[in-house]
Amino acid sequence: MKQRIFTPGPTPLPERVRLSQAKDIIHHRTAEFSEVFKEVCEDLKYVFQTKNDVLVFASSGTGAMEAVVANLLSPGDEILVTRGGKFGERWAEIGEAFGLKVTSIDVEWGKAPEPLQIEKSLQSNKEIKAVFTQLVETSTGVVYDVEGISRVVNKTSAVLVVDAISSLGAEPLFTDKWQVDVVVAASQKALMLPPGLSFVSLSEKAWQLVDKATLPRYYWDFKKARTSLAHNQTPFTPSVSLICALRESLNLIKEEGLKSVLDRHRLFAKALRGAIISLNLQIFGNPSSNAVTAILLPPDVEEKKLRRKLQNDFGVIIAGGQAQLSGKIIRIAHLGWMDKLDIIGVISALEMSLFQLGYEVELGRGVKAAEEVLSQESLSNE
Amino acid sequence: MKQRIFTPGPTPLPERVRLSQAKDIIHHRTAEFSEVFKEVCEDLKYVFQTKNDVLVFASSGTGAMEAVVANLLSPGDEILVTRGGKFGERWAEIGEAFGLKVTSIDVEWGKAPEPLQIEKSLQSNKEIKAVFTQLVETSTGVVYDVEGISRVVNKTSAVLVVDAISSLGAEPLFTDKWQVDVVVAASQKALMLPPGLSFVSLSEKAWQLVDKATLPRYYWDFKKARTSLAHNQTPFTPSVSLICALRESLNLIKEEGLKSVLDRHRLFAKALRGAIISLNLQIFGNPSSNAVTAILLPPDVEEKKLRRKLQNDFGVIIAGGQAQLSGKIIRIAHLGWMDKLDIIGVISALEMSLFQLGYEVELGRGVKAAEEVLSQESLSNE
Repeated sequence: MKQRIFTPGPTPLPERVRLSQAKDIIHHRTAEFSEVFKEVCEDLKYVFQTKNDVLVFASSGTGAMEAVVANLLSPGDEILVTRGGKFGERWAEIGEAFGLKVTSIDVEWGKAPEPLQIEKSLQSNKEIKAVFTQLVETSTGVVYDVEGISRVVNKTSAVLVVDAISSLGAEPLFTDKWQVDVVVAASQKALMLPPGLSFVSLSEKAWQLVDKATLPRYYWDFKKARTSLAHNQTPFTPSVSLICALRESLNLIKEEGLKSVLDRHRLFAKALRGAIISLNLQIFGNPSSNAVTAILLPPDVEEKKLRRKLQNDFGVIIAGGQAQLSGKIIRIAHLGWMDKLDIIGVISALEMSLFQLGYEVELGRGVKAAEEVLSQESLSNE
Repeated sequence: MKQRIFTPGPTPLPERVRLSQAKDIIHHRTAEFSEVFKEVCEDLKYVFQTKNDVLVFASSGTGAMEAVVANLLSPGDEILVTRGGKFGERWAEIGEAFGLKVTSIDVEWGKAPEPLQIEKSLQSNKEIKAVFTQLVETSTGVVYDVEGISRVVNKTSAVLVVDAISSLGAEPLFTDKWQVDVVVAASQKALMLPPGLSFVSLSEKAWQLVDKATLPRYYWDFKKARTSLAHNQTPFTPSVSLICALRESLNLIKEEGLKSVLDRHRLFAKALRGAIISLNLQIFGNPSSNAVTAILLPPDVEEKKLRRKLQNDFGVIIAGGQAQLSGKIIRIAHLGWMDKLDIIGVISALEMSLFQLGYEVELGRGVKAAEEVLSQESLSNE
């Protein structure tokens, strides 16, 4: 059966990316690899919208989150974390695991933190060294006001760290223009790669914190990574095949243009949301991101049954809710290597599945709503 | 030009491994992935020769080395490290980065540590919680007497940690029989995969240390990994494409049989050493491993020139010396996806390159010596 993945990572792989991985391996300590690595590190700056170095690690996104904590801070340091979902909680958990004093701004799951709350927290506690938040909280599908958060954090000496793992390349993020100090990303989302690579960009302000930080690190050592990067290398063996695949996916992004890639994500999110609303279903969370849409399930629809039907009958893989949202929502990603008919497909599968499960749904209504949105705009790659 | 890699990682990829990576990605939180993961974790036990769980991480080998230190120990704990090359030094560096009291047994590069030395160290310092060593010290090509070391460590309460990154599947390692508590390995060596996966096996004695250890870890958390493994999952997003490729390479190893794989490595190492000696070159280090052979360069042969010629004229990539051995040795790996003609090829390229660089060498002499060795034994896969 054809498999169609609509999860917020991994996302479908373009042919060029897939085939690049079937090539013979090259050795990493060669001019050939250095050339590839130099090119991808340059192109990552374009996607990150930064002039700063982007460090590359062989790990999944959580590894890079841990790396940031270990490189920026010292035992007992105070940090501020926005907790509006599973990944905000992850920042807090990592902070606690590393012996930091963690202050949390708890945000109702499905809502976004207010910059004003963060400003107040920073004003009442001048000891806070870093603020950790998300661009998109993947567990709720909500996009945060990183520009607004950055504005308040930048008035202080604290460093702003943004987990853009599920959203880099899907949601606008102007790292330098917005003065976001640290951005964390990973390969298996809008970058259209298998999981296994993670990325970190750091501002000068962040590097100053790295200089003072004493938490233990070796594999994650940012200074070592920066020194090697100056020679187009990594301090430890890199994920060679994934880095070669990254060159392909970054070329695809460059060919389409970052603005068009972001426009496409915005349009597909809008089309899906239009369909969901027309089906009398409710979007969970506000504001809803361009990477992934969470949908509140009606009380009479069982999440597991629905997802099983989508998978068994249509080969469609979507995500359920995590932790406290388990069983209450489904999450459909419109992330990475997607086109209009992928969006139509997932909506159609959802309509037919809900219908067959006895939920009152007018067949074709969601698809019609999505077609109306998708017909309003033409994308630059058409 | 055809590229032929003879470095101690990455090593050449079998076609089945390469092509498996060109497939569509599968989602990791599915029954389909769990089935793959269950199978590879079971087969890894066979290669590790252990009944204990083997944990899988998305990182290169150094990440798993750091993971072991962070999971086994607490700040200020004492450890014993054998330093007979760059990777022994790496254990010491990681220990120091994590605030441990590191006692080193310094071994001349090219020699192996004596179990007796380790026994004496452990007797004179009962506080030592763990001993860190190598099966093969990749920087010198020397194989260590892990069985002997294990015998002395097992008399004490200390845990034995063996870096088998470059040697698992190339050099005999009977994890359970020899009672090796912790074994660290990585994907891009005898496992015939791209870099990006690392592996750790732990004995019951090691798990008891994990229970007491307080060094900070989150991404590397062994307990989380073990809990997830019980459900055929990983706590964080795994390197899906590499794990699917791992299934292919483990199938290749099972089809050939581990004993035959090890025999093949032993035979190829012997053939290469025979050739080197017949060319009046000197093997560096003793005892020389079945994974990689280090060769002392005659004073009139420039390492960089030789390696450049091998690469430019024959597409042959070998490794040079690292750190204090830079410029003094070359290292040729006979590791992973290799056959007899690969070994003949690298010897022939070496002969012709040395000849053209003006070094006095009888053309064909090394190849003849290797053929003699290779003709003595037939391998089970023939």
